[in-house]
Amino acid sequence: MRELNLSTQSADKGAHKHYMSKEIAEQPSVISGTLSHYLSQNRNAIDVANLNIDFAKTTRITMVACGTAYLACNVAKYWFEQIARIPVELDVASEFRYRAPPMDANGVAIFVSQSGETADTLAALRYCKSQGVKTMGIVNVEESTIEREADAALQIYAGAEIGVASTKAFTCQLMVLFALMIKAARENQQLTPAQEAELCRAMQTLPGLMNQSLALETEIKTTALELSKADDALFLGRGAMFPLALEGALKLKEISYIHAEGYASGELKHGPIALVDETMPVIVFAPKDDLFDKTVSNMQEVMARGGKVLLITDAAGAQEAENGTWKTIIMPDVLDALAPILYALPAQLLAYHTAVHKGTDVDQPRNLAKSVTVE
Amino acid sequence: MRELNLSTQSADKGAHKHYMSKEIAEQPSVISGTLSHYLSQNRNAIDVANLNIDFAKTTRITMVACGTAYLACNVAKYWFEQIARIPVELDVASEFRYRAPPMDANGVAIFVSQSGETADTLAALRYCKSQGVKTMGIVNVEESTIEREADAALQIYAGAEIGVASTKAFTCQLMVLFALMIKAARENQQLTPAQEAELCRAMQTLPGLMNQSLALETEIKTTALELSKADDALFLGRGAMFPLALEGALKLKEISYIHAEGYASGELKHGPIALVDETMPVIVFAPKDDLFDKTVSNMQEVMARGGKVLLITDAAGAQEAENGTWKTIIMPDVLDALAPILYALPAQLLAYHTAVHKGTDVDQPRNLAKSVTVE
Repeated sequence: MRELNLSTQSADKGAHKHYMSKEIAEQPSVISGTLSHYLSQNRNAIDVANLNIDFAKTTRITMVACGTAYLACNVAKYWFEQIARIPVELDVASEFRYRAPPMDANGVAIFVSQSGETADTLAALRYCKSQGVKTMGIVNVEESTIEREADAALQIYAGAEIGVASTKAFTCQLMVLFALMIKAARENQQLTPAQEAELCRAMQTLPGLMNQSLALETEIKTTALELSKADDALFLGRGAMFPLALEGALKLKEISYIHAEGYASGELKHGPIALVDETMPVIVFAPKDDLFDKTVSNMQEVMARGGKVLLITDAAGAQEAENGTWKTIIMPDVLDALAPILYALPAQLLAYHTAVHKGTDVDQPRNLAKSVTVE
Repeated sequence: MRELNLSTQSADKGAHKHYMSKEIAEQPSVISGTLSHYLSQNRNAIDVANLNIDFAKTTRITMVACGTAYLACNVAKYWFEQIARIPVELDVASEFRYRAPPMDANGVAIFVSQSGETADTLAALRYCKSQGVKTMGIVNVEESTIEREADAALQIYAGAEIGVASTKAFTCQLMVLFALMIKAARENQQLTPAQEAELCRAMQTLPGLMNQSLALETEIKTTALELSKADDALFLGRGAMFPLALEGALKLKEISYIHAEGYASGELKHGPIALVDETMPVIVFAPKDDLFDKTVSNMQEVMARGGKVLLITDAAGAQEAENGTWKTIIMPDVLDALAPILYALPAQLLAYHTAVHKGTDVDQPRNLAKSVTVE
């Protein structure tokens, strides 16, 4: 474990117009700090303090959260299932707690909350404890109720997050979930030490790649000016980019009040494509991974119906598919599994600049509170 | 097993302006036919042909589908978990098939598809078979590929559904899933014969209650005239009414092109409430069940922010909460667990009349096909 440099975390806006802008910008350094807490000394392996959980014997992981933290869990479900090969059950806390679902005796339940005080998430944690299920909290605020009540807890070390719309807490939650997944995969015999070292190396490229992505801000700001004229928007993705599409939509909705909705690209034909016309921008998150061709095919259906597509992809993806898009944002290359973390930045910047163009109260959007500590 | 009267299922619109209207109206008789196929002779128990599945030994049920059929599965998840106490994993087929999740050796995977030919659902079925998991299809079209390839299959007996937006197929899927859940609950020692008989009696009240609900059509038509002026709408529900809110939104989106989105009521404060102002109608499905007070509290937050609420509830719910709503539709009383089936009718009628007011092509909405047999 290393000392965390707290200088990036002051509650001062510095040169930024809004806390949200500052919190987006500080992600490379904040993520770097979070990473330091979960890497071994030689930075080739994940070192998580003893959790008293044996993932080789874990039959199922249940993840419960609200809002953006729920979407971080949604990304992590793909990681835990595809890499660690442990099934993940996922639910929003306000549904989970009242559904009172049957639990696996050998399951582990993970609760993610920035504040550590989210009322529904806390109630869900208590339900799982009452069922004899091992619980783990992943929080930003030390000594919060969820941290104290869970059998084990991990901190995300995002520092104080003042903007109501979560940005750096989301990417830090993802970093911690990814680190935890590596530990789980190792214990579940799904990763050799060499593979683990490779994933750890890839994680360490993220701060640099985030800096490169932040350099796209001017371009994204121009795109946001167009987007700010729309009343509605769709966000699409496949695989672990699907929850990122949900997060991109949520962010836009929260601060710009544009009615944005995220969809799994494959569900497009089962309803939402009826909404598509020339007034409905469609934002597609699609690095050139195994699912790229499928997503491009969905994107082409949108364009064939007059839809304006903003494609957020990498250089290889742009070369193959930017023809006919309204706008293409070219992101740096990143390991497929880590793309949801990196692509969170253009999603945040897009929402931020759209809201600034619209003149809304970015840090204190109407009707919203930072922590939802009532039901 | 009884003979099904096919007379209600002709592909003739009769006195109706659209197939969708006819298909909504014929639900009481169609549902009655479906029920006959799954009730024992004395109508006190569920009689499903031998499926070769022992639900007492089933560790997990996986349900996979697309579009409206996926939302039927989403309702059924609540039933199977809360009544039969068997955990249910749920996913849209286009995500499930590529995620290739780890499967329980003693699990059962259920695939729901009106046509029985949905490409992604079929691919998901084949994945589960390759993993040695027992598969079951629930389809409307006899001799369809999903029916033929699944280890076991149940038909929903909805008759030909011509309107692209699914109506009677949805309620019939729900009826069959409810019947299957009763069988599972019995085998899993969660229902006494008396309790099973009570649930069967409640199912048999549905055709009559549906007829009473259809009598609300004039009132719903008037409400739809107002709704047709909106560009956006939110649909809210809790518990098994949450997926019904998703279905209500999907239906409206598909045929009226209004950007409607469904949310779990408890997630409202985690983002979507930022959208709420006087131009955003919010449709709330809330019979007076155990979760009613929580939903009403969410509804009041919407009204406090100037939102127009359409509350769809029962007499007891209206008495308690209609104060301040834009409009309240009072549904007949129904067993809590069956409310998602009955409340589907006002959701369908609302979408239908909104679309008629807008003058869209109800039976053939733009960009949509009845069966999605390509990826």
